[in-house]
Parts: sequence; structure tokens; C-alpha cells
Amino acid sequence: MTPQEFRANGHALIDWIADYIEGIDQQPVAPAVEPGAVRAHLPEHPPEAPESFSTVMDDVERVIVPGLMHWQHPDFFAYFPANNSYPSILGELLSAGLGVQGMSWVTSPACTELEILMLDWMRELLDLPESFTSTSEHGGGVIQGSASEAALVAILSARWRATKGAVNHDGDTGRLVAYSTSQAHSSIEKGLRIAGVGAGHIRIVPHDENFAMRPAALTEMIAQDHAAGLIPFFLCSTHGTTSSLAFDPTTKLGEICQRESIWIHLDAAMSGIAALAPEYRWVNAGLEAVDSYSTNPHKWMGVNFDCNLYWTTDRVSLLGALSILPEYLRSSAAESGAVIDYRDWQIPLGRRFRALKLWFAIRCDGVESFQTMIRSHIELTQELAGLVADDHRFEIVAPHRLNLLCIAVRNDDLDAANAATESLLERANASGKAIFTKTVLDDRKVLRFSIGARSTERRHVLDAWQLLADLV
Amino acid sequence: MTPQEFRANGHALIDWIADYIEGIDQQPVAPAVEPGAVRAHLPEHPPEAPESFSTVMDDVERVIVPGLMHWQHPDFFAYFPANNSYPSILGELLSAGLGVQGMSWVTSPACTELEILMLDWMRELLDLPESFTSTSEHGGGVIQGSASEAALVAILSARWRATKGAVNHDGDTGRLVAYSTSQAHSSIEKGLRIAGVGAGHIRIVPHDENFAMRPAALTEMIAQDHAAGLIPFFLCSTHGTTSSLAFDPTTKLGEICQRESIWIHLDAAMSGIAALAPEYRWVNAGLEAVDSYSTNPHKWMGVNFDCNLYWTTDRVSLLGALSILPEYLRSSAAESGAVIDYRDWQIPLGRRFRALKLWFAIRCDGVESFQTMIRSHIELTQELAGLVADDHRFEIVAPHRLNLLCIAVRNDDLDAANAATESLLERANASGKAIFTKTVLDDRKVLRFSIGARSTERRHVLDAWQLLADLV
Repeated sequence: MTPQEFRANGHALIDWIADYIEGIDQQPVAPAVEPGAVRAHLPEHPPEAPESFSTVMDDVERVIVPGLMHWQHPDFFAYFPANNSYPSILGELLSAGLGVQGMSWVTSPACTELEILMLDWMRELLDLPESFTSTSEHGGGVIQGSASEAALVAILSARWRATKGAVNHDGDTGRLVAYSTSQAHSSIEKGLRIAGVGAGHIRIVPHDENFAMRPAALTEMIAQDHAAGLIPFFLCSTHGTTSSLAFDPTTKLGEICQRESIWIHLDAAMSGIAALAPEYRWVNAGLEAVDSYSTNPHKWMGVNFDCNLYWTTDRVSLLGALSILPEYLRSSAAESGAVIDYRDWQIPLGRRFRALKLWFAIRCDGVESFQTMIRSHIELTQELAGLVADDHRFEIVAPHRLNLLCIAVRNDDLDAANAATESLLERANASGKAIFTKTVLDDRKVLRFSIGARSTERRHVLDAWQLLADLV
Repeated sequence: MTPQEFRANGHALIDWIADYIEGIDQQPVAPAVEPGAVRAHLPEHPPEAPESFSTVMDDVERVIVPGLMHWQHPDFFAYFPANNSYPSILGELLSAGLGVQGMSWVTSPACTELEILMLDWMRELLDLPESFTSTSEHGGGVIQGSASEAALVAILSARWRATKGAVNHDGDTGRLVAYSTSQAHSSIEKGLRIAGVGAGHIRIVPHDENFAMRPAALTEMIAQDHAAGLIPFFLCSTHGTTSSLAFDPTTKLGEICQRESIWIHLDAAMSGIAALAPEYRWVNAGLEAVDSYSTNPHKWMGVNFDCNLYWTTDRVSLLGALSILPEYLRSSAAESGAVIDYRDWQIPLGRRFRALKLWFAIRCDGVESFQTMIRSHIELTQELAGLVADDHRFEIVAPHRLNLLCIAVRNDDLDAANAATESLLERANASGKAIFTKTVLDDRKVLRFSIGARSTERRHVLDAWQLLADLV
């Protein structure tokens, strides 16, 4: 592709994306394809000769788009949102165009320094503790690819601290024990498993009727583990669990963990972003006590995936766990201690210039636009909750302080209720008019109604509710 | 940013990128900035109100670009290449514009199915074993973010297999031992450390004068570890080491590892791509014996970072190590076994639609363009080697079968040679005319002359050589 062709094709693709996003409600939100159907429409072997960009875009329209679930669709109420925005798309484009590597400060100083600044800006916008700033004695932040990677980095930092660094040499994790509720994200178990802490040393702390961790139960479990000669080293507290947006009582958990020298990681992957609006800053309760914190602009702030923010107040343990310095990566800037080398803050070595998309979104759309979107989603959820509560055929089965409503079909017989909820979900999704996902809260099957797409308006929520009310 | 503004700003940014890439040699290849200088030119606090896109782009030009090392610059001879290309940039743009999640098949079937197809296309283009295809009994491939993540996934798969899955429950890695040379990439030690295999159980196998692993030494070390009651479980063989592009003897290592049931991971991060050209398929020697293989289109194929390809012939161990299935991610498609859920093939949960940039590059630029680029880089390196060999002030200190030349200043006194090489490197880089990086091969300091930028032509190599010859 020549530079001239790139200009023409690029302009066309920009227009195509604007058309796609503005006309997205013309697509069915979820695809109607069988496994293998997409591939069956594409050549089994690579082409012998180059093809024109328009030929490729024809295949995008003919084969790819009909095979997508449209996460930016206003009728998308599944999983969690992963909204994008125009400035952020341009930030990603610029990152690809520049094609620089930000693994070390010296490999592109602006890449590292803009990222540090963005973490400090976001700390300020979210009203997070001063101890998270890049200029604090032991704290700082970084962009990770996902909350899963952030959790793994937290676990590895905790593991290093609990073993006083010995794990780097002996790999001995045999006495380490970790804690979370059954409601914590699957990435916590996955991260612990990766770090050599098996399921036998992951304690599932009981939760209360709001799906939040019971501090008294935690205290008891820690005492038992101490008595058994084990080392409690890591706790995941969640603000906004995946299944029901439950909030663990971090303030109380923090007191316990500080007393016991347990690393407390706060996973606020989606809900943490609500703190952009001052009236929702209660989502930050307890943050002063944590060792690490993670939230995702790529979920609910219009910064397209991947953009997770990870802060720690214990940089020493982070670097102890993750830094390795071969000859070919040494630099005098790094050795002087004057710079941050972000490769030591993450699992991979290489890294894209992801700060650009956050910078573009904050500057071009502005924080007020995110606040407006977040408020709208929360208000719509509360209005929806009123409608559901007024319909005796349904019940709301978890608190709904933000933008997720957990709904079940009402029936005194649990098995019958579960069958009816599952059937409703399947038929609603099969209608093609909206898409929901399910979960199980304790033994109850639940339809999750998550409101978070940037394009979702009141009418979409009301239509989706009508769909459920008609089908139940 | 309105859709109208996005169109106008997007067109302008596309043109800006074309101007940047076509005029990149007008920039100094490396920035002349002190730590903190970039940040000092940007506002300490986020803006109160939205700003225009052109204001932001002014800052990109004024502050960001002068703070970058330009990895696409023709005078970039540092590290490894990370070249991009026009079609690939557009593929990344489309991925950002669609904003879909490919964590499971059901969350966007086309995202998974195009990726499977791209791995099969690449297997064919690189002439890799049939046992890597998605339709083979136990094999298949996936796009990872980086070779570091690929290595970690390999280590976790090996750990699962060696412990017959017990590690998921007991986390016991106490008897596991891994092997590589000192020339293996730092991500191998980092990955082993993450997986709970400390430095005390990482054996550095001696290398020969070509920096390749000595099989006899490996056999001996394995026997000693067996005698000590340990479990040899993982070996990293490298095709094209970071320091000198050395090749470990994978065929012989494979025989040993198969006999000992050791997982053999082949890291061919940059050099593996050379197999696109049939005359360089010797880089694939021994691949039939490996359990996993990794190479990077984002290094030497014009597919911008991140795009690592990871294949394994043992999907069972991969899934055993990494799959976790919470209620909110269950789907009937996955439970029928008819689809691949790529979240179980990687560390994170979420994933971008990265197959698009590979598809765009292969279709729009075509494999011949990659072959032409690779051949040119290798031929230039061989021509350069001739020039260096003819200059008695220098010596070539490692084999140079591909696109990296390792150079040292000649002096019978090693300390003097090292001081002279280091001084030469510093002065060459300070000239602003080219950028090189250093390494240490055994005790000898080395200037690495890596030829891999898409824009590098003969004149750039000759000028860079003249620079070294003038400064020595």
C-alpha cells in the first residue's frame, strides 16, 4: 500500500467507522452464526498476490460484521460495557502510526512520561489517595492491558513481600494463603494459580446477603491459617463484583489486613470509574488502606480496550517481583534512578503507546462527557429497577447502586424460578432485539441487565424491559 | 467529538501519519531529552473543558514527537525492529472502531474465527509442522500480546503437564527444574519466576563459541537433577537470541527432551519470520520436536505491535493450566466443544480484534513484500559484514546468518577493547545520526547493528557504517 493509497483508504475507513458507529442500531446486536460459519466464508489459504483495500473491506462487511456481537450497540446489556469513543479511536490510530515501543524510558521517553502524567491526572479525576501519585515516596501507577494482568501483578508483588524476596530464588509458595469471596472475578483464581498458589490455598470467605465479604469470617479464617503454620499474604477486595456489582467492606478489611501484613488488592474494574462523578465517590471507600488498586477506563469511560489503570503504594515490592535487567536493556537513565522503566511494572516486555488514547479522550471529550454518560446509565438503571419492582412476576435479587440490575423470575420453588429465568434469557437473546448474560448468585439463576453502552438511551432500556415483560 | 468532527479529524490524522512516516528521516532518530522534560511541557492537571483536536495535535508535534525514539526511522539499528505498515495501521484502526471483545467465541464469533484462520495461514506461509494446525488432534495457535506472554503460557502448560495437573490445587513447584542458556531472553527467567520456579531451579546450560546450547552439557545437568530427586520440566530453545541471533540446536535438544518428557518451547521471536522466504526455512530446523513455538509478526513483518503468534501441539496441557469457567462466562457453544474460547489460551481475559491487522497486511501488501524486505535486510547485513571484516580496527564477534551484526573494537586487551567499544557506541548514538544498542557476549562488550526497519535502505546502512568507521 503506497502512502497515496493509505491516505485514500484511511479516509474511507474513518468514514466507514463513523457510519458503523452512527448506524450500529441497524445491525442485530448479536450475530446469528453457527460455529465455523465465518471461516467457511473466507479463503482457506492466503492470497498469492496483493488485493485491493476495497476488496478486503467488502469481506469485512460481508463476513466479519455479520459475525460480530456489537459491543457498542445501544441494545447491548450483556457482560460489562467496553465502550469506545471517537477521540480514543484516534489515539489508538496514532499509537499504531507512530509504532514506538515504551518498554523502557529510553526507548521513547514521551511514551513513558505521558503515561505517568495520565496516571496522575486520573488519580486526581477519581479523587484517589495522594499515596498513589508518581511523586509519592513509594507509590505510582501504570497502564496494564487488563484487570486480570493488574491482579496478577498485585499477587506477585504480595508474594515477593510476604517471602521477603526469597521466592525469586527458591520459588517456594508452599505456605502462602489468599482470600476472596466466591464473587471475586475469575482472574483472581487464575492469577493465584499462575503464581503457584493452588486452589487448596485459596480461601473462599463467606459473603453476606448483599454478596459482600463478612469481615468476621475473614478474621476467623486467618486465625485458623496462622494456627496451621500458614502465611496469609493476599486478599482481593472487590468494588463492584462481576455477577452483581457487590461491594466488599474495604475499610474493615483494610484494618484486618494491615494488622496481619496481608497485601490488599482492590479490584474496581468497572465501578471505580464512577468516581469521576463526585456524588459516586463512595465507591472509593477504604482506598487509603489498600496496597494496590485497579480500574478500567476501557470499561466505562469511552477509552477503547485495552486500558486498565493499576496503582500501588508499594513500588519496592512491585520492582522486587518483576524487574530483570539483562545487558541489552541497560541504560544510564535507568541506572541513575531518574526514570521509570514500565517493563518492570508488567508481565510482558514490549508495550504500545496506550496513554495517547486516554489523553485524547480526556482532552477532546472532557471529563464532563464521561460524568454525563455515567449518570445517565445509573439513572436509567434506577428507573428500570422501579419498573421491575412493580411487576410481581419478577424480583430484584441484589442491591443495584450503580448500573447493573440482577433480575430473576419470581417463583417460590427455586428450581422452577431458575428454569423460568433461564428460559426467559434464552428467548430474549434469541429475539435479536437485545442481549443479556446470566449468572448464578448462590443457587439462584439470574439475568444480568447491565446498562453501559455509550449509545444506550432511555428508549433502548424501556424496549428491552418490555421485551422481558412480554416474554416472561 | 461529533461524528462530523471525527471524520474531519480522522482524515487529518491519517494524512498526519502518512506525512510522519514518509518524512521520518527528517527527525533525529533518537530524542535529546532529559528525564522529566516531556512532562514539564504538559499541564500538570487535566483540562476543565474539552479542547479541539487540533490543539491536541499541536502538542503531539510540539512535545510528544520530539520526545520519541523513532522506531520506524531508517537509521534505527537498535534493539530489534518493530516495524509497522500501512495496511496494519488500518487494521488496528478498524479494531478500535469496532470495539468488540474476543475473550470467548460467543462474545464475537468473527473475532475468534478470523484469528484461527490467520494462525493457519501463517503456519502455511512459514511452512510449520502440520501438528500446529487448528484442525490437528491436539494443536492450534493464538495471537498473544508478546513473546514474553507466549513464554509464560508455555511454562504454565509445561508445569501443568509435569505435575499431572496437581499444581492447580497444591501450587507445588518445589521439584521443578528448567533449562536455557544465558543467551535466552530475559522473559524466560521472568516467566519462570512468575510461575514459582525460582532462580535456584533455573539451570544455565553452557553455550558453545557460537552462543548455542551444548546438548552434552544439557544431558549431564538433567542427569544430575534427576539424581537429586528433581523434575526437569521445561527447556527454552532459542532461534535467534536477542544478543547475537544465535541458534540453539533444537533437533538435538528435542531428542533429549522427548526422552525426558521435558516441554520444549522454541522462542523464535524475530528470526522465525525469516521463514516467509523459502531460502531461510533453515530457521525452522527441529520444529517437529517442540511442544510450543512463538514468533512475532510485530517484529519483522510490518504488523504493528502487538502481534505475537503462539502455537502448541499440546492443547490439553494449555487448557488444563489456564481455563477457568465462572458462571458469567458459560455458553452453550463452548460447552458443546465446537468452538475455541481464546481467553483460556492467554493470561488476560479480555482481548482486542488483533487478527485484523495481520489479515490486512497479508492481503493488502502480500507475502512477497515481506519476503523482499527480509531479503533486503539480510543482504545488507552480509554486505556490511564484508566491510567490517575488511577494517582491521573492528572484529565481528558472532555468526551473522540473518540481519544482526555484532561488532567490537579490536584490541588484544579485553578491557581496552571493551572501553573502546563502549565509547564508540556512546559517541555514535550522541551524534544523532543513528542509534545502536549494546550487549555483552560472555565478557566482551558488543555493539549490536540490527538492520530491520522497513524504511532502511542501502545508503542508510553505509552511512551508519561510515559513522562508526569515522568515530572509532
